Amino acid sequence: MSSPLFKRLEHAKPGESVSLRDVLDALRFSDDGLIPAIAQRHDTGEVVMVGYMNRATLEETLSTGRVCYFSRSRQRVWRKGEESGNVQTLRELRVDCDGDALLLRVDQTGPACHTGQRSCFYLRVDGDRVSVTDAPQRNPQDMYRSTE
Amino acid sequence: MSSPLFKRLEHAKPGESVSLRDVLDALRFSDDGLIPAIAQRHDTGEVVMVGYMNRATLEETLSTGRVCYFSRSRQRVWRKGEESGNVQTLRELRVDCDGDALLLRVDQTGPACHTGQRSCFYLRVDGDRVSVTDAPQRNPQDMYRSTE
Repeated sequence: MSSPLFKRLEHAKPGESVSLRDVLDALRFSDDGLIPAIAQRHDTGEVVMVGYMNRATLEETLSTGRVCYFSRSRQRVWRKGEESGNVQTLRELRVDCDGDALLLRVDQTGPACHTGQRSCFYLRVDGDRVSVTDAPQRNPQDMYRSTE
Repeated sequence: MSSPLFKRLEHAKPGESVSLRDVLDALRFSDDGLIPAIAQRHDTGEVVMVGYMNRATLEETLSTGRVCYFSRSRQRVWRKGEESGNVQTLRELRVDCDGDALLLRVDQTGPACHTGQRSCFYLRVDGDRVSVTDAPQRNPQDMYRSTE
């Protein structure tokens, strides 16, 4: 399943490198051209959300340092924080062993979630129940001009 | 896009809970019945891999406490560590705000990656290059009966 490039990198030594362009060409985007991107706070290690990128938004993220996803629900480029101001600044981008997932280490301004929660993962399984773990940090009505 | 259940939970107070069954019924699995599951080490916070689960492997994971994915490449249930011994024990499972991603906090035995690397995310973008950050912890030839 993995491309020859990623197979080769399995045997590379720490510090060895290949061109970014070759890696971008070898990434495994889904049939609709997307790859999942996990956003993790650089300071605390919290996983705050999962978004999707196409090649264009990935390249924009790398060139600008400001995280840009492709919104599946709106089917358009989504510069994280464009309305809410809750932007993500890229500190480090990693690619997984077989090139089908990205890990973004980010500086997160404000809450990451559209609900105003610090992280999108505020629902925790507790036995046969699922509990809300936290309260929003911001009122979503203050984050967006129009509420959905 | 989000189900009524997840919309309702956006306004729930910390500590409020709903039944696990209702959440499982409201999860947004892809057309092929899968949902991405991010595995994060409970002790260090490292994101070590992204796998996929269907409803059956998610329920098995919750009932046994041993992480079980659905392998997209092999199209079968994949009890993580079944060959390598590098099992993941579930410490906590979280669901995101709109029910289309899972976060697994795990105790990871041995390396998480099939390459013997501690994490699958050992490729880092450095400018116009992508570098290998680490050396494997284990020789993959010792991890699997047959090498792929």
